[in-house]
Amino acid sequence: MIISASNPRIREARQLSQKRRRVAAGRFLVEGVRLINDALSSGVRPHEVFYAPEMVAGHTSAVDLLACLEAAQIACWACTPNVFRTLSETVTPQGIVAVAPLPVLPLPSCPTLTLLLDQVREPGNAGALLRAAEAAGVDQVLFAPETVDPFNDKVVRAGMGVHFRLPLRIMAQWDELQSLIPEASAVYVADVRAALPYDAVDWRRPATLVIGGEAAGAGPEARALATPIAIPMQGAVESLNAAIAGAVILFETARQRRQGCNGHALGIDIGRACG
Amino acid sequence: MIISASNPRIREARQLSQKRRRVAAGRFLVEGVRLINDALSSGVRPHEVFYAPEMVAGHTSAVDLLACLEAAQIACWACTPNVFRTLSETVTPQGIVAVAPLPVLPLPSCPTLTLLLDQVREPGNAGALLRAAEAAGVDQVLFAPETVDPFNDKVVRAGMGVHFRLPLRIMAQWDELQSLIPEASAVYVADVRAALPYDAVDWRRPATLVIGGEAAGAGPEARALATPIAIPMQGAVESLNAAIAGAVILFETARQRRQGCNGHALGIDIGRACG
Repeated sequence: MIISASNPRIREARQLSQKRRRVAAGRFLVEGVRLINDALSSGVRPHEVFYAPEMVAGHTSAVDLLACLEAAQIACWACTPNVFRTLSETVTPQGIVAVAPLPVLPLPSCPTLTLLLDQVREPGNAGALLRAAEAAGVDQVLFAPETVDPFNDKVVRAGMGVHFRLPLRIMAQWDELQSLIPEASAVYVADVRAALPYDAVDWRRPATLVIGGEAAGAGPEARALATPIAIPMQGAVESLNAAIAGAVILFETARQRRQGCNGHALGIDIGRACG
Repeated sequence: MIISASNPRIREARQLSQKRRRVAAGRFLVEGVRLINDALSSGVRPHEVFYAPEMVAGHTSAVDLLACLEAAQIACWACTPNVFRTLSETVTPQGIVAVAPLPVLPLPSCPTLTLLLDQVREPGNAGALLRAAEAAGVDQVLFAPETVDPFNDKVVRAGMGVHFRLPLRIMAQWDELQSLIPEASAVYVADVRAALPYDAVDWRRPATLVIGGEAAGAGPEARALATPIAIPMQGAVESLNAAIAGAVILFETARQRRQGCNGHALGIDIGRACG
């Protein structure tokens, strides 16, 4: 039983709340029964797990998970509730947190729909966008410079397991973009001032959608590359939340790909456009 | 200058953070320059305003707003920063808050698109849904029993002025629904398990969309009245955030109404369907 918050294992795990420590260690914290189960079911093997027996007791799902982790010979360290709370980032912790390898899922060889987050700073928005992206069929997500870290604990929680299933990459420089998306991919940026409505785009072609930040939208690098599109709005609303705007556009791409049309039949076969 | 937090005016205003006090007084708190400007530009006249000169000083937009309020002979009470903070619900207050009448905007005689929130508890979701609703052309929003109060400060902030522009009603009982939506309005409820895709619905007809809560979706009363629809999802995502799901469906209604089709031409004229 670990009883001191200055225990070296605990100290090392706690440092993973900082981005540079996560990058250096190649590890991040995965808190709570649901997220740890998501990791396991995606084939991710945690390095180690910390739990507070007092907090876990009586919660079947947590007890079952611990049994499963121990059966898989993953080191599970018991600690006191006070020690556990030094690792936890949640308001009502479930008493279990895993140290897991940062997922580096293989990028698709021919991405048909890329989401690029540029200067999105609010972790809840980034997490909601990741969930919407997976559900809408995005096949890779890129994080531009000056964007929230995808492995920030709040993004991970809001993402509800998507981090283990959808390939994510952090772009250190804008010129990496060319190596990450095929030339055939048209690039669009959501911009409330744009004249082109988002639903007039033919989303059956390979495409990249840039969603900009809450404060000032996308930066100049993204704008230089992308065609601006807007969601036509009624009333006096000035803008939509970044996650809402992104989801509305992403599900329009999914609708068009499912229905095979966008109302403007162009006869493009998405499966062959990248060939 | 009000220097005591127990000043009767301050005490009365502070109580408006409670729903029952808001209902009893017919008033609510509108905090910050932007929201107060939204109120004014929608023709709402605040009863009174509290501000902290020290906090407002140097912020042109706040100084201009105060000048405008005083020119309109609205009582503006100066108070100390500490007194002001007892009224403020924000982390970084701008130093100005208005007491405004609860808006009761007239309901449309023939609503073509009603949004009904049922058991949505998270104020940020409710506010984001209100913003999306206005932008997508919803003409009234109903709050079912057991749903967050629309005049909760967090909903008001997240709504960014929509409270002054979109007719909202709190339903005390489910049987009020019949008097608030026309019989011709089809009722749909977002339900992740539904077989009917949301984009197969003909949204050019008068319709009511029910969005259920984060935890368990819509309640039995709503389900009994409504046809379930789902947003088809890829990957392993179990559900979308309530605000995201609602916005995706609302903007599909807007898209169909703008394009005049949903891919299934039924020849209904939305303008005439309500007789």
